[in-house]
Amino acid sequence: MKNSVNIGIIGLGGRGTGMMSVMAKMEDINILAVCDKYPDRVDNAVKILVDGGRPAPMGTVDYNEVLDMPGIDSVYIATDWECHVKIAIDSMKKGIPAAMEVGGAYTLDECWELVHTYEETGIWTMMMENCCYGEREMMVHNMVREGVLGNIVFCSGQYAHDLRDEVAYGEKNRHYRLRNYIARNCENYPTHELGPIAKLLGINYGNRFVSMSTVCSKAAGMEDFVKQHKDLKPSLGSTKFNQTDIVKTFIKTEKGELIELTLDTCLPRFYSRGFTVRGTKGLYQEDG
Amino acid sequence: MKNSVNIGIIGLGGRGTGMMSVMAKMEDINILAVCDKYPDRVDNAVKILVDGGRPAPMGTVDYNEVLDMPGIDSVYIATDWECHVKIAIDSMKKGIPAAMEVGGAYTLDECWELVHTYEETGIWTMMMENCCYGEREMMVHNMVREGVLGNIVFCSGQYAHDLRDEVAYGEKNRHYRLRNYIARNCENYPTHELGPIAKLLGINYGNRFVSMSTVCSKAAGMEDFVKQHKDLKPSLGSTKFNQTDIVKTFIKTEKGELIELTLDTCLPRFYSRGFTVRGTKGLYQEDG
Repeated sequence: MKNSVNIGIIGLGGRGTGMMSVMAKMEDINILAVCDKYPDRVDNAVKILVDGGRPAPMGTVDYNEVLDMPGIDSVYIATDWECHVKIAIDSMKKGIPAAMEVGGAYTLDECWELVHTYEETGIWTMMMENCCYGEREMMVHNMVREGVLGNIVFCSGQYAHDLRDEVAYGEKNRHYRLRNYIARNCENYPTHELGPIAKLLGINYGNRFVSMSTVCSKAAGMEDFVKQHKDLKPSLGSTKFNQTDIVKTFIKTEKGELIELTLDTCLPRFYSRGFTVRGTKGLYQEDG
Repeated sequence: MKNSVNIGIIGLGGRGTGMMSVMAKMEDINILAVCDKYPDRVDNAVKILVDGGRPAPMGTVDYNEVLDMPGIDSVYIATDWECHVKIAIDSMKKGIPAAMEVGGAYTLDECWELVHTYEETGIWTMMMENCCYGEREMMVHNMVREGVLGNIVFCSGQYAHDLRDEVAYGEKNRHYRLRNYIARNCENYPTHELGPIAKLLGINYGNRFVSMSTVCSKAAGMEDFVKQHKDLKPSLGSTKFNQTDIVKTFIKTEKGELIELTLDTCLPRFYSRGFTVRGTKGLYQEDG
């Protein structure tokens, strides 16, 4: 068994660069390559590693160069949402297991493409749903296993994160959320909530999702935010945002548990995953 | 204008007796009659009034005797859920305005019957939704009017009240919730949440409800509670409860606000109306 892993990092925005810095502190990880479509981000990432005493990685704007690099064991993908799955599939086809950031797939077709690619190649991809490893989430998971909460009836979670700034300044920040919030309306980021809940309810381990419905509010938060910020008016003053402010999704499981997911990113608020687990013997609730 | 009002109280369970005691402290209210189908409750109510220095009211087990009593200005109805509307309509038809407790009507037909009776008689009935007058609810209503929260996008509320004891001991307590929780599955008590929210969003004052959907969990809380209480097993040990533990209802308004209502009465928890109002400028949240 190898004592270290050779990693390529694809996508060097806030998340990719942040995770690179975490990995750079781990002695059993060698960062062989860094990649982003923007050259200045690549240069910045190389500089961070070298300044930190790490060997200079290959820097590139073409992720295929990372996948073709000799000795790469795995790639970590933190690009814009739209190309996570394409890069993961290209990686699997070249025999390289991929670790793919949230949000994951855009369409059901993409989900099936991941399944079929795994079946053809035997190479896995892993969804990097970090909230599955949250301290509170793991604590409650253990409480449920130990029977502390009794028969589980209801779980809820939310991605409740005021992202108005990140979205509205998306041109300046080169952030993919901006175009998504203008063009789409959906639960665009469900896995922070659903990952830990699915684990806890044994989804695909004796239980499964059987039905789903989604409802949403109007879209008012982003337009109001743009109105309050004069510097945004020239580019966004007449923009209609399709993404609604509050999106609620309900999933019923085969064992009868009800799951509630909330997307809440366009209104002023404190950050919260609003994690709640209700059973016949007790209640865990993050807020309240 | 009269300086006092002559009231008859119909229904003398916990709520009716409690409200009678509140009214007995008000100098401008004369309690002329008290009524319940159980004679011991009637005797108890008469005794409370007389012991408190009030004139003895007429006591009866037949509410028609209250409606036919000379000088009655209004009746307060706090019977079991099933007959609120019938008594209110009988009262209106006799020219007596009625005040009807929560939950109100059982069916859409009953709602229309109330409307038609008002149109025929010109006599009103009032839904006694006390949470509309809650301190927090009135505070937030005023904040919304003053524009503090901006453009309102989302409101939620809940009837979150651990009623397992009240329901399970319904035979002993002569409580109507027991038969309802065995026979029905629905959002059986929505007005505590919906009353204040409807006021705040201007429903029927320039805004209206346009669509509704409801989802629910399994029913596990009551059966688990019965199992834990040996004295309940002889009468309820094999009872299937139809009422599910968590019932979520979503209402969309014409102006695009999303409303979420939760019924949560069969699992262990703290009492909360979970009142939340979200706007483009701020957030009010009861828990959290």
